[in-house]
Amino acid sequence: MRLFPVVMAGGSGTRFWPLSRKDRPKQFLPLDGDEPLLVATVARLPPLARIQSTYVVCGPNHAAAVRRMLPQLPRENLLVEPCPRNTAPCVGLAALHVRRRDPRGVMAMLPADHHVARPAAFRQALAAGARLAAGGAIATIGIRPDRPETGYGYLKVGARLRAAGKGRSAFHPARVERFVEKPDLVTASRYLAEGGYLWNSGIFLFRADVILEEIRGAMPVLREQLDVIDASIGTPRYARTLRRVFPAAPSVSIDYGVMEKSQRIAVVPADFGWSDVGSFAALAEVREHDDLGNVRQGEAVVVDGHDNVVLAHGSRPVAVVGVDGVVVVDAGDAVLVVKKDKAQDVRKAVEEMRRIGREDLL
Amino acid sequence: MRLFPVVMAGGSGTRFWPLSRKDRPKQFLPLDGDEPLLVATVARLPPLARIQSTYVVCGPNHAAAVRRMLPQLPRENLLVEPCPRNTAPCVGLAALHVRRRDPRGVMAMLPADHHVARPAAFRQALAAGARLAAGGAIATIGIRPDRPETGYGYLKVGARLRAAGKGRSAFHPARVERFVEKPDLVTASRYLAEGGYLWNSGIFLFRADVILEEIRGAMPVLREQLDVIDASIGTPRYARTLRRVFPAAPSVSIDYGVMEKSQRIAVVPADFGWSDVGSFAALAEVREHDDLGNVRQGEAVVVDGHDNVVLAHGSRPVAVVGVDGVVVVDAGDAVLVVKKDKAQDVRKAVEEMRRIGREDLL
Repeated sequence: MRLFPVVMAGGSGTRFWPLSRKDRPKQFLPLDGDEPLLVATVARLPPLARIQSTYVVCGPNHAAAVRRMLPQLPRENLLVEPCPRNTAPCVGLAALHVRRRDPRGVMAMLPADHHVARPAAFRQALAAGARLAAGGAIATIGIRPDRPETGYGYLKVGARLRAAGKGRSAFHPARVERFVEKPDLVTASRYLAEGGYLWNSGIFLFRADVILEEIRGAMPVLREQLDVIDASIGTPRYARTLRRVFPAAPSVSIDYGVMEKSQRIAVVPADFGWSDVGSFAALAEVREHDDLGNVRQGEAVVVDGHDNVVLAHGSRPVAVVGVDGVVVVDAGDAVLVVKKDKAQDVRKAVEEMRRIGREDLL
Repeated sequence: MRLFPVVMAGGSGTRFWPLSRKDRPKQFLPLDGDEPLLVATVARLPPLARIQSTYVVCGPNHAAAVRRMLPQLPRENLLVEPCPRNTAPCVGLAALHVRRRDPRGVMAMLPADHHVARPAAFRQALAAGARLAAGGAIATIGIRPDRPETGYGYLKVGARLRAAGKGRSAFHPARVERFVEKPDLVTASRYLAEGGYLWNSGIFLFRADVILEEIRGAMPVLREQLDVIDASIGTPRYARTLRRVFPAAPSVSIDYGVMEKSQRIAVVPADFGWSDVGSFAALAEVREHDDLGNVRQGEAVVVDGHDNVVLAHGSRPVAVVGVDGVVVVDAGDAVLVVKKDKAQDVRKAVEEMRRIGREDLL
C-alpha cells in the first residue's frame, strides 16, 4: 500500500485579517509557531510519507509562494486549480493524478491550515486510516472532544469495525452513523456528556480508484468533467483543458457531495492535539501562554489582564493594560482589536476596510 | 489693572503614553483638537490679554519646542526653570518677573494642558477673578460639577462676597471654606447632591506683590531664594544664579504651600466646559464622538462596540470589533490598549517598557 498525502492549500478567507491577505492566506502564516501552517503540515508527514509522494493543491496566485516555501516538493506534485471550487473538484483532480501513479494508492486529504501538537500520534492515526482505506473504506479521522466546542462539526460514531492490518493498532475504527453540523452549546455539551461523538477533522483517506468510483455515483457531472481532464494529463493540452473544464465544476465540498452519502465511511478516533485554528481565539489553544492565559508574540506586554492574545510587530511594542479576553494584532500596516469571543466577526472589520477604500490591506 | 497670564508648561508625566514622551509632554499634544493644548491655552487669552503680557514657564528640554510653537511669544516672556520644582517656585519666579513690569499687575496662573470648550465664558470668568485679585484677593476659578467626579479636588464654597469691579458680572464670587482632596464616589455624589462644592480647576489669580507677600509668610525659605534670584534679574548673572538657587527651592505645590493656608482666598464659580484632560478616558469628554460614544481619530473603525477611544496613526488603520469601553492608541512606534476605567494605569505600561529595555519609547 502506497500513501499519497494531498495537502489542500486552496483556502483564502478573512478570519486572520490583518495578518492574512489575498496574497498571504492563513496557511502561509506561522500561526502556531515558527513556520507557516502549510510547511508544518508537509513537514510532519515523514517518515509516514515522503515528499516525492506528497501533493499540494493551491490556486494560481499562490503557486509561486508554495514553491518557495516547499523547495523539495517535486514540480509535478503541485496541482494548481484555475479557480476555487471547494473540496470535491480538488479531491477529484488529485485522485486523477494519484491514480496514474498507483490506481490503488491511498490518498490522505489534509487541510493545509491545521495545528497538530503531537505529530507522531498524528502519523499513527493516519496510518490506521490508511489501512482502512486500503481495504476500500473511506476513512475519516475523528478527534475525541475535550470540551463542548461549537465551532466544529461532529461525527456520530456507529458500530465498531474489526481493525484492518495487523491488529496491533491502538485505534478502534468504527462506522460513522452520521455527520452532525456545528451544534449549539447545549447540544455540544450533551455530545460531550453522552460520548460517542467525535470532532470532524476534515482529514479523509481513500484509495484513488475508490473515491473516483464514489464521485461517479454521487456527482456524475463532476465525474464527466474529471474524465475530460484526465484524458489531457501528460499532454500539452492539460493546462488549457484544466482552465476550460475546472471552473465549470460544481463548487461543493467533498463532505456534502460524497462523504455524507457514502456507505463506506469509517472513522479512526484519535487524539493528537488537533485544532483547525479557526480564528484568533484558537491561538490560545495552539500557542504557549503565560500563567494568566495570555498569548504574547514579539514585544507584547500585558499588565493586569488575562486570557488575551497579543501579537506585536517588528520593533513596535504593544502594551495591554487592564483588559481581559481580547485579541490585539499589529500586522505592521494595520491594527486589529477584537473581543476573543467575537473573533469570528473579524470579517466585519474587513468589510469596513473595503468601505473606507483600503482594499490595499485586504 | 493689567493682566499677565502665566501659562505653566513644566509638566511631564506618563498618562498619555505612547503619545506623550520626554520630549513631547502632554501639553505639546493636540489632545482636544488640531493644536497642542499649550497653543490652545495661549490662543484663547486674547482679547483679554495680549501675547506681550503672556508668560510661559517650562523646563530647559522643552524651551526650543515652546518657542517654535509660540513664535509670537516675546523671548523674555519664556521663563525656563532649570529643573521641575512643582508650582510654588514656578509661581514665585513668574511673580518676580511680573512685579518688575507692574508691582500691582494681576497674574493668572494657567495650567498649559487643560481643555476649555467655551473660551468666551472662560475669559469672562478670568476677568471676574482678575477683578477680585486686583482688590488684593487670591482668586481661584471653581468649576460647577455636573457629575460625581472622583478625579478632581473640590472647593467648599463659603460666604458670598460682594462682586468687585462694576458689579455687572454674572459671577458670584465667594470665600473658600476649605480645599477638599479627591473624594471617593460616595463622597463625590454627596458633594453633587448637597451643592456648595466646586471643582478646583488649578487656575489662580493674584497680584504679583500679593503672592510674594503670601510666600513670605507661608514659605520663608522660598522667599529668600526668590530674593536672591530677583537681585540677578536683568544682569548677566541671572541664568547662573537661577541654575544655582532654583534647584534648592522646596518642591511644593502653590495649593499646599500657600493657598490652603491663606486667608484671602476667593472663588469665582464658573462653567465653561472645562476638563483637566487627566487621562485618555477624558478624551470622551473633550472630543467629538459618534452616537455610540466612540471617539475616533484617523482611520479608526469600530464595529459592534461603544464608548471606545480609538486613535489611529498615519495611514495605518485601527479596527476595533466587539469591544466596549477601551482605549486603543497607535503612536506610530508603539501601540497601547487600555480599559477606559483603568486609564490611570498607563504608567504601568511605561514601567514595563522600561523593564524590557525600551527607554527609547519613553
